[in-house]
Amino acid sequence: MRADIGNALDGALGLDRAALDDLDDRVADAHDRIERGRRDAEHGYAALNLPSTCDPAPIRRVAAGFDPESVLTVGIGGSALGAATITDALDSPVDAYALDNVDPAWVTALLDDLDLAETVVNVVSRSGTTAETLANFLVVRDAMDAAGVDWTERTVVTTGPDGNLRELADRHDLPTLAVPDGVPGRFSALSPVGLFAAAVCGHDLDALLAGAADEAAKLSGSLTESPGYAYGAVSYALAERGAATNAVMPYAESLERFAEWFAQLWAESLGKDGRGQTPARALGVTDQHSQLQLYRAGPADKLVTLIRPTETADREIPATDLEGLDYLGGSSLGDLLDAEFRATEASLAAAGRENVRLEIDRVDERGVGELLYATEAACVLYGELADVETFTQPAVEWGKRAARGLLGGGEFAEADAVADKRRLDVE
Amino acid sequence: MRADIGNALDGALGLDRAALDDLDDRVADAHDRIERGRRDAEHGYAALNLPSTCDPAPIRRVAAGFDPESVLTVGIGGSALGAATITDALDSPVDAYALDNVDPAWVTALLDDLDLAETVVNVVSRSGTTAETLANFLVVRDAMDAAGVDWTERTVVTTGPDGNLRELADRHDLPTLAVPDGVPGRFSALSPVGLFAAAVCGHDLDALLAGAADEAAKLSGSLTESPGYAYGAVSYALAERGAATNAVMPYAESLERFAEWFAQLWAESLGKDGRGQTPARALGVTDQHSQLQLYRAGPADKLVTLIRPTETADREIPATDLEGLDYLGGSSLGDLLDAEFRATEASLAAAGRENVRLEIDRVDERGVGELLYATEAACVLYGELADVETFTQPAVEWGKRAARGLLGGGEFAEADAVADKRRLDVE
Repeated sequence: MRADIGNALDGALGLDRAALDDLDDRVADAHDRIERGRRDAEHGYAALNLPSTCDPAPIRRVAAGFDPESVLTVGIGGSALGAATITDALDSPVDAYALDNVDPAWVTALLDDLDLAETVVNVVSRSGTTAETLANFLVVRDAMDAAGVDWTERTVVTTGPDGNLRELADRHDLPTLAVPDGVPGRFSALSPVGLFAAAVCGHDLDALLAGAADEAAKLSGSLTESPGYAYGAVSYALAERGAATNAVMPYAESLERFAEWFAQLWAESLGKDGRGQTPARALGVTDQHSQLQLYRAGPADKLVTLIRPTETADREIPATDLEGLDYLGGSSLGDLLDAEFRATEASLAAAGRENVRLEIDRVDERGVGELLYATEAACVLYGELADVETFTQPAVEWGKRAARGLLGGGEFAEADAVADKRRLDVE
Repeated sequence: MRADIGNALDGALGLDRAALDDLDDRVADAHDRIERGRRDAEHGYAALNLPSTCDPAPIRRVAAGFDPESVLTVGIGGSALGAATITDALDSPVDAYALDNVDPAWVTALLDDLDLAETVVNVVSRSGTTAETLANFLVVRDAMDAAGVDWTERTVVTTGPDGNLRELADRHDLPTLAVPDGVPGRFSALSPVGLFAAAVCGHDLDALLAGAADEAAKLSGSLTESPGYAYGAVSYALAERGAATNAVMPYAESLERFAEWFAQLWAESLGKDGRGQTPARALGVTDQHSQLQLYRAGPADKLVTLIRPTETADREIPATDLEGLDYLGGSSLGDLLDAEFRATEASLAAAGRENVRLEIDRVDERGVGELLYATEAACVLYGELADVETFTQPAVEWGKRAARGLLGGGEFAEADAVADKRRLDVE
């Protein structure tokens, strides 16, 4: 991956080269902390070791036991987004789906669409108790029974060393994969959690991990040597100066899910202690006709992250005699996409709005591996600089307890608070 | 639609009932301005008259000329999002697609997937010169030729009173629909722009317009009488107090595209003069495992808009002997969804984070019509209160000229600025 941070300097928020050079001293300290965490395989930091600690062999071995039309990841949040990001980015004859919501109409429609006899299910939950995932798994298992499909022949379990799902796997002799120790869900794309579906789809796990390893090898004590750190440091420095929002805008439909994955990474890791930068997902060129007015002329409180592959398939635009459109005919969609990318970047810069360009060569296994790892490294560095606990998500527990209480899963004070909601209805 | 604004009061941003009552005087003035604009069919305000001025008969008549497997809207921004929002929300045996990006690989994959002989194409551009739309249309036309399909038999043109596309329609005797006068693209969902694809899909246009008309009938000089105005006034008041972000979170997969439509409405209409509230798209319950940590424990700079239908299809969760999960078995996915909705809402309130609940009865034509109209009214009211030009989008012109210049479509100083990009590459 390459990061071009030129347009992050000297914009409305006033980050200049001198401040960036000052920040580089802190990057060196943060890097030391990160390296120590990696060396000791501390919780969270261990995720940055995955390019070397993740063994693709067992993932491939389990995947080789199936030759399905579809792979269905049953998980939520980090247990589903990594797999979905990789499989959405890359072409495959195998269709990949994530059952990552409990909307009944949607679950039913998705299960009705699948040929369950030709589907392999990967149920992913470290604890084995995630309510949405387990509820959906029970529904899927039932749907397989109803369709006359032996679910024990079509289910893979990806979980921690013990718990419900591990016991279930033992009881029914299901193939299992391990959620690695010390790797929070949102950092688990480059582990069995994210890679099993990719393997079923026939993607090259070695190339995914090699792309990540390339970015790992660049990490050093200076932001000028690693695009991931450069991006993380600039994001942090701009956030400190008022960039409350990070608008992530890939110029490739295949990377739309990456923006969703990034939004989780950034929000859950950095959104704590009253601080954090809010990710906003956008898509080029489409959202030039939706969000650009705001990004360019609204509050100067954003970093816009423009992401693209530099090489894509192309398609010619046929010549036309339609008036005023001769400039399009003979050009190509790729030329148009490139022109709009550069025009949008320059239009933001001309308005003093900070932006960063992240580029990979192609949306292939190596490029996706680079992008995932470099942005994870960016996030971890940002967390160090901001002095937050990057690898925890304590604020979601309140709601989990409340929901469990509402469903009769125990006595929780939070559930009582729900009943006290203050209403002010306008109908 | 119903708006419950109880959780917008007395949170971290300090909006209280007294301030809301004061604001209501300004709502009365703003309403007078809006009513005057509607009466005189002024630019933009005219959009709020669509429930009565849009005649569904010609839309249905043109749609009745086709009995396709698929309908493909070729447009971008407001020319595509309204149609996509409605057709994504509602079930139909006809598949609806929007060709709203110029990513070559994606365009090619979509066209390869479609049976073009069984597809009706609606090309939508008021001016007939939108670069992305016309480029894609030329590509689609060529693909139809290559597939031996007579494109003149399968193309509908939706455009303004003159220009390229109008001439093309005249030359080839294509069916046409009118982009209504005075209605900006992002407010055109309830016009032929948004309704043609819905008609092809067999949706009830009368019910869509009736839902919108119901909300129109509620508009009055007080925010306490119209859920749309209540939502707009509260959004404005919170933005003034620091809610830089509006996180829009439907609890229905079928409304995911609605959040995208809303993001355009809000960003382009209100993001100007250095002000505006940044829309962030999220999805319940999925993003509870992604964004909730940030919303609850990050900066107190957000309004969270929770949207849901109160009635949905449901699906039972089968009983289980998995340990600790007995509380799920015998419950339903709908119960789980409802519990999580209420738990999330309460968890935000317990942390002092402002949120609003928007409810429709069902995701059906009437409910979607209500939601579209009420949020448009909210946006227009917000624009009046903030004193911005709600119906323009001047900041996007710079980039359009630059892109056109880069493609050889004329001499534009903006294109020269692109070449001067300051680079600072980290590789």
